[in-house]
Formats: sequence, structure tokens, C-alpha cells
Amino acid sequence: MRMEDLKRILTEVKNNKTDVQDALKLISNLPYVDIGFAKYDTHRFLRQGFPEVIFGEGKTDKEMVKLCKIAVENGGVVMVTRVVKKTADYVRKHIDGFKYHADAHMLTYGRSNGKRSKTGILIMTAGTVDRFVAEEARITAQMFGNTVDTSYDVGVAGLHRLLDQMEKIKKARVIVVAAGMDGALPSVVGGLVDKPVIAVPVSSGYGASFKGLSSLLTMLNSCSPTVAVVNIDNGFGAGFMASLINRL
Amino acid sequence: MRMEDLKRILTEVKNNKTDVQDALKLISNLPYVDIGFAKYDTHRFLRQGFPEVIFGEGKTDKEMVKLCKIAVENGGVVMVTRVVKKTADYVRKHIDGFKYHADAHMLTYGRSNGKRSKTGILIMTAGTVDRFVAEEARITAQMFGNTVDTSYDVGVAGLHRLLDQMEKIKKARVIVVAAGMDGALPSVVGGLVDKPVIAVPVSSGYGASFKGLSSLLTMLNSCSPTVAVVNIDNGFGAGFMASLINRL
Amino acid sequence: MRMEDLKRILTEVKNNKTDVQDALKLISNLPYVDIGFAKYDTHRFLRQGFPEVIFGEGKTDKEMVKLCKIAVENGGVVMVTRVVKKTADYVRKHIDGFKYHADAHMLTYGRSNGKRSKTGILIMTAGTVDRFVAEEARITAQMFGNTVDTSYDVGVAGLHRLLDQMEKIKKARVIVVAAGMDGALPSVVGGLVDKPVIAVPVSSGYGASFKGLSSLLTMLNSCSPTVAVVNIDNGFGAGFMASLINRL
Amino acid sequence: MRMEDLKRILTEVKNNKTDVQDALKLISNLPYVDIGFAKYDTHRFLRQGFPEVIFGEGKTDKEMVKLCKIAVENGGVVMVTRVVKKTADYVRKHIDGFKYHADAHMLTYGRSNGKRSKTGILIMTAGTVDRFVAEEARITAQMFGNTVDTSYDVGVAGLHRLLDQMEKIKKARVIVVAAGMDGALPSVVGGLVDKPVIAVPVSSGYGASFKGLSSLLTMLNSCSPTVAVVNIDNGFGAGFMASLINRL
Amino acid sequence: MRMEDLKRILTEVKNNKTDVQDALKLISNLPYVDIGFAKYDTHRFLRQGFPEVIFGEGKTDKEMVKLCKIAVENGGVVMVTRVVKKTADYVRKHIDGFKYHADAHMLTYGRSNGKRSKTGILIMTAGTVDRFVAEEARITAQMFGNTVDTSYDVGVAGLHRLLDQMEKIKKARVIVVAAGMDGALPSVVGGLVDKPVIAVPVSSGYGASFKGLSSLLTMLNSCSPTVAVVNIDNGFGAGFMASLINRL
Amino acid sequence: MRMEDLKRILTEVKNNKTDVQDALKLISNLPYVDIGFAKYDTHRFLRQGFPEVIFGEGKTDKEMVKLCKIAVENGGVVMVTRVVKKTADYVRKHIDGFKYHADAHMLTYGRSNGKRSKTGILIMTAGTVDRFVAEEARITAQMFGNTVDTSYDVGVAGLHRLLDQMEKIKKARVIVVAAGMDGALPSVVGGLVDKPVIAVPVSSGYGASFKGLSSLLTMLNSCSPTVAVVNIDNGFGAGFMASLINRL
Amino acid sequence: MRMEDLKRILTEVKNNKTDVQDALKLISNLPYVDIGFAKYDTHRFLRQGFPEVIFGEGKTDKEMVKLCKIAVENGGVVMVTRVVKKTADYVRKHIDGFKYHADAHMLTYGRSNGKRSKTGILIMTAGTVDRFVAEEARITAQMFGNTVDTSYDVGVAGLHRLLDQMEKIKKARVIVVAAGMDGALPSVVGGLVDKPVIAVPVSSGYGASFKGLSSLLTMLNSCSPTVAVVNIDNGFGAGFMASLINRL
Amino acid sequence: MRMEDLKRILTEVKNNKTDVQDALKLISNLPYVDIGFAKYDTHRFLRQGFPEVIFGEGKTDKEMVKLCKIAVENGGVVMVTRVVKKTADYVRKHIDGFKYHADAHMLTYGRSNGKRSKTGILIMTAGTVDRFVAEEARITAQMFGNTVDTSYDVGVAGLHRLLDQMEKIKKARVIVVAAGMDGALPSVVGGLVDKPVIAVPVSSGYGASFKGLSSLLTMLNSCSPTVAVVNIDNGFGAGFMASLINRL
Repeated sequence: MRMEDLKRILTEVKNNKTDVQDALKLISNLPYVDIGFAKYDTHRFLRQGFPEVIFGEGKTDKEMVKLCKIAVENGGVVMVTRVVKKTADYVRKHIDGFKYHADAHMLTYGRSNGKRSKTGILIMTAGTVDRFVAEEARITAQMFGNTVDTSYDVGVAGLHRLLDQMEKIKKARVIVVAAGMDGALPSVVGGLVDKPVIAVPVSSGYGASFKGLSSLLTMLNSCSPTVAVVNIDNGFGAGFMASLINRL
Repeated sequence: MRMEDLKRILTEVKNNKTDVQDALKLISNLPYVDIGFAKYDTHRFLRQGFPEVIFGEGKTDKEMVKLCKIAVENGGVVMVTRVVKKTADYVRKHIDGFKYHADAHMLTYGRSNGKRSKTGILIMTAGTVDRFVAEEARITAQMFGNTVDTSYDVGVAGLHRLLDQMEKIKKARVIVVAAGMDGALPSVVGGLVDKPVIAVPVSSGYGASFKGLSSLLTMLNSCSPTVAVVNIDNGFGAGFMASLINRL
Repeated sequence: MRMEDLKRILTEVKNNKTDVQDALKLISNLPYVDIGFAKYDTHRFLRQGFPEVIFGEGKTDKEMVKLCKIAVENGGVVMVTRVVKKTADYVRKHIDGFKYHADAHMLTYGRSNGKRSKTGILIMTAGTVDRFVAEEARITAQMFGNTVDTSYDVGVAGLHRLLDQMEKIKKARVIVVAAGMDGALPSVVGGLVDKPVIAVPVSSGYGASFKGLSSLLTMLNSCSPTVAVVNIDNGFGAGFMASLINRL
Repeated sequence: MRMEDLKRILTEVKNNKTDVQDALKLISNLPYVDIGFAKYDTHRFLRQGFPEVIFGEGKTDKEMVKLCKIAVENGGVVMVTRVVKKTADYVRKHIDGFKYHADAHMLTYGRSNGKRSKTGILIMTAGTVDRFVAEEARITAQMFGNTVDTSYDVGVAGLHRLLDQMEKIKKARVIVVAAGMDGALPSVVGGLVDKPVIAVPVSSGYGASFKGLSSLLTMLNSCSPTVAVVNIDNGFGAGFMASLINRL
Repeated sequence: MRMEDLKRILTEVKNNKTDVQDALKLISNLPYVDIGFAKYDTHRFLRQGFPEVIFGEGKTDKEMVKLCKIAVENGGVVMVTRVVKKTADYVRKHIDGFKYHADAHMLTYGRSNGKRSKTGILIMTAGTVDRFVAEEARITAQMFGNTVDTSYDVGVAGLHRLLDQMEKIKKARVIVVAAGMDGALPSVVGGLVDKPVIAVPVSSGYGASFKGLSSLLTMLNSCSPTVAVVNIDNGFGAGFMASLINRL
Repeated sequence: MRMEDLKRILTEVKNNKTDVQDALKLISNLPYVDIGFAKYDTHRFLRQGFPEVIFGEGKTDKEMVKLCKIAVENGGVVMVTRVVKKTADYVRKHIDGFKYHADAHMLTYGRSNGKRSKTGILIMTAGTVDRFVAEEARITAQMFGNTVDTSYDVGVAGLHRLLDQMEKIKKARVIVVAAGMDGALPSVVGGLVDKPVIAVPVSSGYGASFKGLSSLLTMLNSCSPTVAVVNIDNGFGAGFMASLINRL
Repeated sequence: MRMEDLKRILTEVKNNKTDVQDALKLISNLPYVDIGFAKYDTHRFLRQGFPEVIFGEGKTDKEMVKLCKIAVENGGVVMVTRVVKKTADYVRKHIDGFKYHADAHMLTYGRSNGKRSKTGILIMTAGTVDRFVAEEARITAQMFGNTVDTSYDVGVAGLHRLLDQMEKIKKARVIVVAAGMDGALPSVVGGLVDKPVIAVPVSSGYGASFKGLSSLLTMLNSCSPTVAVVNIDNGFGAGFMASLINRL
Repeated sequence: MRMEDLKRILTEVKNNKTDVQDALKLISNLPYVDIGFAKYDTHRFLRQGFPEVIFGEGKTDKEMVKLCKIAVENGGVVMVTRVVKKTADYVRKHIDGFKYHADAHMLTYGRSNGKRSKTGILIMTAGTVDRFVAEEARITAQMFGNTVDTSYDVGVAGLHRLLDQMEKIKKARVIVVAAGMDGALPSVVGGLVDKPVIAVPVSSGYGASFKGLSSLLTMLNSCSPTVAVVNIDNGFGAGFMASLINRL
């Protein structure tokens, strides 16, 4: 149930278009739907302004379809993260309107129809392999109504590529930086700006990158106090956090 | 050099109160002062709106006085973190106007004279031992002109204490949560709100808390996407980040 | 050999229905059967009141059938954990009476015919992906004669879903909580009750969850002293421990 | 506020010895006392049957006295853990009735006046250096009204010393085992019994014991499913958990 | 080149059956054969009394055949460890006389024709899944001419199974103990004997066993000073070490 | 763009063979080509004397072809690391002139046509499984114009094999040592020479080698101060570093 | 009680010098003396041929004197490890005959009066800081009647120093090698010999030596199968193990 | 013995100023002096061109004086690292000519009298607390005859400070970069140059810097292949390595 739905119902009650009993029934939906293996949160839109995002791992194709149906019925705007193509195809075969974003491994349905933010979020990556995580952040931020720009493959080993992005960097209100290996990009970007930088460690790399531990530690130890960190590979979290901040 | 200083100089030039040569001299200060063991960044106020914060560890008392003097001369608003009382006393003996915050282990001088923010930042702690880190965040946020409220010792093991803080939680624009041991508080707070939560792991605890590693991992794995994390015990970073966000 | 079998034999001796020689032979079974690669413990039922549970990993299909046959002959109640479907099917093809629990990856045979406990065990999960581990705990506890209830997908990020379970929580004598990622649920549940909470870290999640290490540390550092912890993904151990306690 | 206090008030109301207004006032004490740096939980006795235990680390001597006073006033039975002798002496100088347990590093006041349990808890240690943690468990369990027995220095490297304890082991309802280094004792004890074993890793040892990590992992991987684990050096937690279980 | 070959040559020289030039040529074989990707050590038999053992990982089938041929030509007794069945079959198709040991994942050729040791080595395992590592130790020790006995699946959770092995334990000169999970068996065995115990951690288990780290740490921290440790899953190393000791 | 290309253009301008406008156009190529998912650095040859090396992981076959084409057009000398054979075949089908090095998992195109270095780089390995990493170093060093020699399979467990390489060791100007398992070879080689040794940990091995962590730590702790370390399995980095040094 | 004591008693019984009742009394001492915080094992000499060694950490001066007295009375040969000088002085003031070994941090009393072994144990160290651990091994081995030789400061970074020790190396039956930092010495020594090498990691060093973890991993991954490992800094364990082996 | 000494002796022999017997005696000094706890390497100057550097930790004041005397007698150029002031004062009281460098914690005696290098080594630090490690590198490099320049406190969070050092950076032949916390500086510097960068992680920082682990991993994962790494806090090793390279 979206805020606008709630407003509409209340307005109809006020205008005597819906009687109190029916309104009560409509509103008094349980705040979640219990479907055994999961409890789908239908009031999150009211609480946080966003629909519950479905975490795609560990669910069978059938369970995914079941959850997606409830989500479509309750929110209208749906995001599923970490969906492999096979499951995505299965969902799309059973429910119309879902779109699959291959690089981001996401399924989306509908889109925030609020006004698009004027100033926006910049998503940056250090290397080409970081783009999968960055795309998850980008799709997430766009689904929440943000204007999003990107600067990919601008790692610190080629400082001139990074400095060429200064205009984009200055224009953004919030910056998301995805980086694996040495994870040094957020520190450098964070030193250039006076706005929040959300750093996402990426599990790319090999050897002593220890599946993202290396860049995670780098980012937590960033000498720029403009940097906060989310989980390794958590592009969704970074996009969500940036959306929360940009909305302020 | 603060933005207002720069404006004043330019206005005086415009009004012929300062001639161009003198203005140039005033403005053309190097962006940092090189004092051998350190390069004090005097233009950070221009770049980020805040003075350089001095990291107190690894500096002798004499070096600290030297840096503090430059800071006072260039910025007018100064913060020193992680200062032990002995060094703080030494600085205060040699430079007037510094105040020592014992719980936060900070020295401050002056204060942002911009308007105080109306809506503000809430600093929460899970246990009593987390207050040292929380105080560092609080002093930092206040120095940057934020209205700051606190809810200390409201960890998840006594849920009723936490739920009593709902009003403060709802009123805040940004929330900082400091927690050691299980580090579970940010996840719970993050699930109650639709605003940014900056989580600070605290190195308190013993045994398998591994000096804050436990709460760091908990926070990075928070099931609430409203949570971003800074370094263990980094109260300053959390306060700084919250200030950046609250300023938007 | 179950306690009731032993009692029956002794009673028959007392009543002159079995002579001493035969009784001795029946009872003097070795306390385990040595089948080369394994020593099946046939007296565990006498020692602990439960049959030896067979750990399914690292055994060939044929070895599994061999062990299951001995178990059926000696105990009558059999549990096999961590069995993949292929092996389960093989066992069921060769021995009648086994049932496969797909979510729990368990094979069971027979069932404790003691009286079912009146008050019981509550199994809770934080997210949907934790249910595989939770199901292992549930089947285990049921096999040992406990009344078991479940509250799945009630993680701390949606506190209202959790608080809706208060009635179940209050009714239980022992609670098992399975959670991955931030592993915060046991701390919160543990703070609401005055009964033992057995926490099971789950290896679900990604990035800094480090295959369950994150939630393991969270649980070990729980601020609620009502929480004790078993190995990551050890649903069986949690169910067993809860059964031991509920039996008191 | 203890349950018996509450009962008394309600009885007095029923018997018209206290009028409703006064009763309300007495009962409606806040569930905690907010003293700035801490929120003392005064209703925990009602919720869990035990007073809040005060964690001694990170508190000044004065703060400790303040908390102890509130605790004495609200509960009558008080426990403080991890108190160094210096602080303990300070508290005892300012409040009468506290007793310091040097090996356990605990302060206690009063004692559960419920009936002492008939069957009880056995506290075991593998080596002599584990006794500090074991003593914390012992004092805790005794404070909660349990009959407690001990078997110290019976590690697995001298199996005959352990087997001499079989009578005590059989008599106990719950067993607490504290062990550092190889942490093997809970596995062996757990294999001998059909009752809950609460294992406490101890940070004693050197080298690859890594401050208790070694014994923690051993215990989590115990081949006996009768074992659950609490945090390294958490004697209090083990004693508390054993008390919860023994009370069933 | 085996010691006996060298002796024969020298004796023939002494007896004028081989002239000095030919003998020199025979003996002056390079101490290794350089075949590009590897340098096969042909004098190890002289230095250590054993042929070079070929480590099977990371070699193609063709390279393996090449190495095995050189080994057969130079030593007569050959062992290949960590060979998958596919490669073993390939070798056996190209060179006669190799035998594959499926559980041990080893290929062997010939056998020490020295006298078999009278007293011998006992190989023990805690659980059934440890037998793969134990078998590698057993085959290795047998290839080096030792009398080997085994006690499998006698973990500490069923102490009576272990105590039944006391006769074998007392008879052995050296004991190899393979154990995963809690890795507690070597500590217990080590406490029962006054002879060297070589402990091999096994990577079996799940969760906090962290691929053998758990049992490795347990064994390194063994309270019995009769225990020394080799690498996780290093059955070969344990068998080799036991052979060295038993030969004394 | 290579330095010689730049020189040619400038000479042509000087000699009036190219007019300034055309020259500007030729030179003013952006220092990188932005192809969306990547920014190919075309001026690296000018900055570092080497073409950008393409990191093969995380790129689709089509993307790889796209990048390789740009690289061929801009540099003439191209290296792709960590390419699986399937992708290599795809590239070779679409672009002529690429050569695949199977052991090194590298694609190369063209070759430095500068003079080959007289004295050179020695690449050493401890075991046969280290040769994949060593080959990456070898191909890299050769592509950059170095004379390269190799000493493979000369680990410290067979010291005589190592000492046989003393002549090669003495002749080299820089030494690259690849080793897994105990990683002891660089320490020993480093103690024999007075020239830089670049150590590459290799992730070969099993158990407590923890995917190269063991040899990484050994090398970082080398008692010979002639040793510096690159990332685990980073043969390319070692070859690059050795080239930089040998060029001095 | 030492074996010779037992023999003497039995012989006296046989010769009618002691009557059966008195003999029984003498022999039937409990196998350990229970002194509350510890159970001193008085029959270990019978079981393992050595007296119980007292671990000095975590015991007060008074407790140490108490244990030492019992040890002197029961065994006659006593070793205390990890004793600081202050405690050692206290013991020596209260009991005559103890000798303090400052480098080894050991107290000893008496000495094995069996025949000294002819061939012996060689103790080696890589660096000068490893000698504290090596001395603990040396004293231990000497107390158990072994002939012990030493080669200190012969690390692999100066191979000629090591090769000068070849004579000693060849003469020894068992070798103990203590090394910190890169821990490479046991691998090299192990490759030179065909006898057991007991490797002791030492926690000396700094940075990535991680308090001995680095050398521990190196030794566990030794390419020479002649190496087995004991705990970090466990000189006593190495000396004990070497004694067990040398006794064979 | 320095190369020049050797040359002089040989020249004297040639010129009949020293007879062959005496020369032999002079030259045939053992390559090291055995002083019990240490073997001082007197021929290292011949092998590596540098005297043995004395590692200051773990040696008593007396032992240090002993070693320093031998060093002075054999080499004439002596360096002692990691010496606390107290020991340094003791050495200087007993031997003339030693100089103590307080920031570097080093003692030096004499100085390479070879020609000073023309082009040189640049030592950089990210923050002020890194200067202790940097100074160790600087003194080391200067002792080996290098021209050394420094750029301290130029971390990536203030990129303008770093870019101001471009001239120094371009002039250097080898660069040493010391950095703690995020350890990002070597990656950025390494991307700007085509010369070797030796990175030294520094254990400064707090929380998730884990005593230098964070910056160590960052540096090992540097995206610039111009970077090689030495141990945490190993300023000496970095200075030595840079000297080796600059000498080429």
C-alpha cells in the first residue's frame, strides 16, 4: 500500500465516496502477508516510502513468483536483487511487466512516479569489473526516483581519468564509489568533495584481495571523513543509502 | 581561511578598501603550511566548509601546540581528536581558548558561528561503555553547527528502553548509533526509520568481540539498508558524516 | 537398543519368560557395531535416551544403506542429517520406512513413541534463507518427542513482525533462533524472555558475512545472557540441545 | 521491583490496605532509571526473575557506586561482574553489604531468598588457570539460588582425573565446562552425558590459542550435540544460562 | 638410485666385475633429472632412504606419466599422492605395475623390500569422514616398510569406543591421529601414552570448522606434550613422519 | 600512442611535412578512449613506456575483442592477462596477430622493438605447480624487452638443486621467485645475492596454505632485506616490477 | 612416585623387608593430589616416565610453592615452565634445591639419574631472539636425560652459517628448530636430513609476523615431510617431543 | 671486512708488502664470528656490499655492546635498527662514534665513503604518524650512499598536497612510500610514475586498521603494477631495497 493509495482512500471517505466500513477494511490489511516461508512486508512503503525489496538468493523459482505477485499487488513498484537470469525468465513468463537488468542481476517492476530529483547521485567505479555492483546501485537509485550519473573505470592508478570527472563530481549531491582490489578510490574522491561518499567494496580481484576484505578495510580506514561503507558487493545498499540522503 | 574571510577581502577590494596587491597577498597563502613533519591544510575550509581536524595520536606535545597555533590562526574553529589529558593540558597552557572534553578525548577551539540547524542529529548508544565514542561524535557534530540529541544505553537486550526513544528517533534527520559487543542496535533502529543511520562499531567488550570486529561485521551485514558504517571507534567520522548529510 | 527393549527383556527374565542365558546374549550386544569404516554406537539410546544420529556427509550411498540398516535394527528411531536427495532416494529404495525432508536435508525413520511434550520449543528465523537450518532443528526436535512451533522470517529490520510473535515466544519453554547476516535476532529475542535461547548462526548472506562468521560473532557477543550458541548451520545441534533442555 | 513486592502491593490493594492511587504510583515506577550515562533496568526482575547484572568494565568508581545504590534500592539482590579490587573496595566503602569475590572479580549483594535447588549445576575446568572464569560462573549460579558443585583441573590429558568425577557428573542437571588451550573437555564430557553442557572458552594459553579463539572453535565444533557455547571468558553468561535451564 | 644399487656397484668394482670408469658413469648420474617443468630428485633415496614422492596436484596426465616413468627407472619404489582416479587410470594405462588406492587417492609402485618393522604404527581417526586422510597415512607408512594397524571412528564423544582400543594404543611405537571438527582426539590419546603422537587436522566438518582451522588450532594447543602436528589433510606427511620415527 | 609516434609527428611538423592543425589533431587524442564500461588508457605508453595491460577477468568475449582492437590501434604492443582459452580463441578469431600462452593464461600481440636488455631477469620457482604464475612473469618481462632466464622446481627442500643454479643467480640483475606452500625460497635466494628479489606468493598447496596466505606471510617476513613482495599469484606484477628495475 | 621407587617397594615386599600392608599403603597413593585449585598428577612418572611439568602462568607465588612441594615429594625431578624471576626467587626462598634458568624462564629440581643418551638432540635457532624458546627446549631435553647440542643464529639468510653446522646436523638423532619471522629454517634443515625435525614457531618479529602466525604457517606448509610442528613459543613441547622420540 | 680492505691486502701481497702467509691469515677470517647467542656475519660486506645490520630487539644492553664492537671492528659502517633510547645511550657510553636517530630508533656508526649517488631515492609518507617508519628508511638509504629526498604528510585525502610534489616524484629513481590507515598513497603515486615504488605499510591507525593489516592488503592489491611491498613498519627493508635498486 502506497501513501498515495492511503490518501486516496481517506479523501474518498471524507468526500463520502467510500463508507467508513469499506475504508477500514481496505486500510486494515495486515502490515505483512504471511506466506509460510516468508512474511511479505506490505506497509514498508508507508514506513519508509519504498516497497520491500526482495532478496533473490535462496528462493525457488516458484517462491519468487509468489512473492513477486504479492509485491505487485501491494506496492506497484517492485525490485528483486541478486536474481539469476533463469529465475528472472521464469518470473517474467508468469507475471507481465517485469524487466531484467542483466549486469545488475535485478528484476524491476514499475517505477517511482514521484518527481525525479533535480540534483542527483553519481555512481563511480575504479575498474571495469566493479560495474556489476555499480549497476545494482544505479538501478536501485533510479527506481527510487533519483537522477543518476555514472563515471566508470576511473581508478586511482590513472589519476588523469579521475580528474576528468571533476565536473560530474562537483555536480552530484551524493556519490557512490564501487571499488575492489586496493579500494583506494573512495579515499581520493572523498578528499576532493564536501558531500557524502558511500563506498562499496567489491569482491573482484584475486590473491590478497580475499574476496573484498582488502577493499573493505581500505574504505573503513579512509583518511577522508566523508566516507561511509556498506557491505562487500552491496550495490543495492549503497544505492538505497544514497537515495535516503538525496531525498533529504 | 574561512569562506567569510575570503568574501570580506573580495568585498573590500570591490569597495576599494583593500588594494589588489594586498588582497592578492592575503589570498595567496599556500593552501597548506609546511612545517616539516606535517603539512597543515589551510584551505580545507574553502574546499569542504570545515577546518582540518587534527588527529591527536603520534604527535608530541610541542608538535601539537605548533599545529594548534597554525590552526587557530588559519581557521578560527579547531578540533583535535584522540588527545590524552596530559597533552590537552599542555596545549591549554600555551594557547588560550581551548576546551577539553574528557569523555570524548577532544580539544576544541571556537565554534561554527553559522546558524544552528533546526532539525538535527540523534546520537544513540547500546551500552554505557559506548559513550566515549558517542561523545566524540556528539562534540564533532555540534562543532559543525548541528543540533544534537542523545539516547544512551538503549541496547536491544532491553527493547522497552529503546522503544521509549521513538519520539527522538522520529524527530532526527540523521542518526548515529555506537555499539560494541553484538552491535545489533543499528539493525533494529535502521528497521524503524526511513533516514540515514551511521553505525559506529565500538571496541568495547571482550573475548569474541575481537576489539570491535564482531560489531563491525554485524553492522556491515545489517538487514536494514538504511545503515552505513564507519571505522571501529571512529566517533569523529560518524559525527562528520552525519554533519555532511544533515547539511544537505 | 532402546530402554523399553531392555526393560522388556529384564521383565521377561523376572517372569521366567526368558532364561538368563538368552537374556545375557540379548543384552550383551557390543555397545557398538564395528563395520570397518565406522563404529555404530548401539547403546547411545541407553546412555542418552536418543539413537545415534548419522552424519550424512562423506559417506557413499552403499555405506549409508549399511549404516541405516544397522540403525533400524538397533534403535528403531533413526535420523540422518545432511543427506542430498540422490542418496536419500537410494536409501529409500533399499530400506522401507524412511522419509525424506527436503528443506531439512534429513532422512528419518520411526518416531519417538514416548508422550509428546506439552509445552514446547519455538523455532524462529530472521530471514527466509534461514529456513533450511531451522527445518533441520524442527525435524530433530520433533523426532525427540517435542511439541514444536515456528515463527519464520521475523528479523529485527521489521520489528512489528517480531512483536506479533510475542504470544508464541511467551508460550515456549526453549527457543531456537536461526539467523544469518547481522545475526541480531537472538539478542533481541533473548532480551524479551527469561528462558534459554539457542542461537544458530546461518551461513547465508554474502560479502562480510564471511559464511556465517559475522552472525556467529554477533551471537557470541549477545548482550542478553539468555543466549548460548551452536556451530554455524548446525540446526541439528540446536534442535538436540533444545530437546535436552525441554526434557528437564 | 521484585515479583514478591508487586504481589504484596496488589494484595494490599485487594485488602484495601493501599488505595488505588498509591498503588499506581508504586507500580508505575519507570521500568528503568535514567541516570544520564546509563539506564538502569528496574523491571528486569519482573521480566526475567533476576536483577540487572552490572557490567563492571568502562565505569568510573563514582558511576559504579551510583549504579550499585540504585540496584540495591530496586532489587535487593545485586551482582557486579569484572570489577577490579580497587573499584570493589571503593564501592564497599560507600555502600554496606557488598562482598568481593577475588577469583571471580565479582561484587555481590544479598542473595536470592527463593528455595535453593535440590539438584544442581556442576562447574568443571580443564586446567588451573581456567578457575577465574569458572568462579564467575559459580558465584553467578549460586546467586540465582542454585546448588553448585565443582570439579576443577580435570582436563583430558589426564583422563583418570576426569573419570574420577563421574559421580558428580551424573548427579548434575546442567554442566558448565570452562577450558582454554585445546578446549577439548566439553566434547569429552558431552559424550558422557545426556544433559546440557554449557561450554566457556577461556583465553588462557599462549601462541596459537589466540586468546581463546582456539578453544572457542573446538567447542563450536564439538562432536557431542549436548554442547552449546558462550563467549570467551564469559563465566557469568555460562552461570546465567545454566541457571535458566536448571530452573525449568 | 637406491642404496642397494650403489652397494652392488661398489662391490662389483671391488671384485673387479665393473671397472672404475663404468662405475663412475653409473654413479655420477646427476642427482636429479631436469625435465623442464620439474627436476626429479634421483638421489633422495641415498639422502633420505626413500624415493621422491610425487605430489599429484597441478600436473597434467602426460606430465604425470613422464615423471612416473623416471621415478620407476630411478627408484623402483614410487608413491604419487593426491591423484584423481582419471589421472591414475591414465598412468596405469601407460605404465605397468602401478596400483591405485581410491580412499587414499594414491598411486603406488613396488614396495620397500627391506624387512618389515616388528613393532609399528597405529593410525586412528575420530570420525568416518577422516578416513581418507588416514588412508593416505596408512599407505605411506606401509610403503616405507612399517607394520601398520588402524583404529577408525573412535572419537571422544563416545569414550567407550576409544577405551576399547587401549591394547592397540599400548602396542604401537608411534601413533597417527586424524581428526576434523573439534580435533580433540589427539589430546586424549596423547594423555594416555608416553610415545609420539602425530596429529593430522582434517578439513571435514562445516561452519566454524573453517576447513580444518578449528582442529588445527586444537591440536597445536594440545595439553598433552606428546603431540606434534602436520598440515591440514596431510596424511602423507603424518605417515612419513611416523615412519622416520619408527625407524629410529 | 607510442613515444616514437609522437616524435615522428613532431619531426614532421618541424620539417613542414605535417601542418600544425593536423598534428594537433593527431596528438590531441584524448589520453584514453571511453567505451562505456571501460576507459582505455592510450597515453600510458607515454607516461610509463609500456602499453596498458588488459586484465582479462570479468569481461565478456565481445568486450575483450573491443578492448583488444583499441589496444592494437593505439599501442601496437598488447598484453592480456588471465584469459581463459575460450576467450583467447574468440579474440584470435576476430583479430589477427594475437598469440596465446597457455601456461601463463596470456594473450600477446607484437613485441617491444626496443633493444633487448643484455643482462637480465631470472625467474625461479620452488615447485612445479608454481610455474603457471612464473610463466606469467616470464611472458610479461619478455614483452617489455628483457632477456629472461628460468630456474624452475628448485625449492629449498632439495638444496642441491638450488645451489646448482648459482651461476644463473649470479648473472641476473633482478630475480623473480614464485613459491607456494612454505614460501621459503625467496628468503634463501635473497640471502645469497645483493640484488633485488621480487617474491610472488602462489596460491598452490592445501590446508594451512590458506590459498597463498602462508607463503605471502613468509615472504613479507623474509629475513633477507633484499626481498619485496607482490600480490598472491601476481606473476604479471612481478614481471612488470622486474622490468622497471632492470630498465634502470 | 617414580618407577624405581615402585620397584624398590615391590622388591622389599618380595624380600620380606616390607610387609604387604605397608606396601599397599605406600603404593595406593591416589594417582593425583587434590589441592583445590589443582589436581597434581603423582602417577605420571609411572604412565609416561616423566614427572608432571608445572605450567607457571596463572598461579600465585603461594600456589606455586604448594605445587612445587608436592612435586618434590612425589617425583624428585621437577620442572616449572614460564616462571618469571620474581616467582622463581620466591620458590627458591621457600624450597631448597631449585635452580632458575633465566633465558628459558624455567625452574628445575633434581635431574633424571638414568643414563644419559649417547646420540642426541640438536636444538637450532634462526635468529638470536629465538634463543629464549630454544633454551626452554634445551633445558627440557636435558632434564629428560638427553645429550643436547645447539646451533644458534643460523638462519637461511646466511646459508654458509647453516652449512657449517652440517656435522652437528648429521650427528643428531632428532632436531628441534626454533624460528620466528619467515620460519624458513625447518624447511631447509628438513630437506637436508632423514630424521625427525620438530619445528617451533617463535612469536618474535613484528608487523606481518602476527605474533608467530607467519612462521607457524610456514612450518605447517613445509615442503619437507620430515617436519612436524608444535605450538608457537612451545619450547617445552618441542623438547618433550624430541625426548620421546630420542628415547625410542 | 670491506671490499676495499680486501683489495688493499691483495695489492700489498702483489707489491710484496705483505707475505702470503700473513695475507691468508687476514683473509681467512671466518665468514662470521660466533659469540654464542649470535653469529656475526663478517663477510656480508663482501657478499652484498653492505655490513650486517643489527636487529635491535630481543638483545640485552651488554649483548648489544658486544655485537656493536665486533661490527665496528669488522666493517667500519654499522647500523642498528629498533633500538630504544636507553640501549642506545648504553652503547654510546661504551663505544665512541655511534649516533642515535631518535625518530628512526636507529644507531649508526661511520658512513659509506663511496661516491654519493647523483639521482636518488624519494621517501614519502601519507600522514604525520608514518614518519617514524619513513625515517628508518631514510637513514638506511643514506647510510648506503644514496641521495635521499622526502615528501612527508602528502596523503591522498588532500590531493593538492600530493600533486605539489610532482617535481620531486619525477626526479627520483626509486620511491619509498610509507602509509598506514587506508594505505592508498602507493597506488596513486604508482599510477603517476614509471619507476619502482617500494610500499611500506605502517601500523598506525586504530580500529579496522588491525595494526597495519589494512594498509598491507591495500598495497598488495595496488592497481599500479609499479608497486612492491615490504613488511609492516619495515622502514629498514624499504630503504635497503631502494638502495639495491638505485645502485643498479
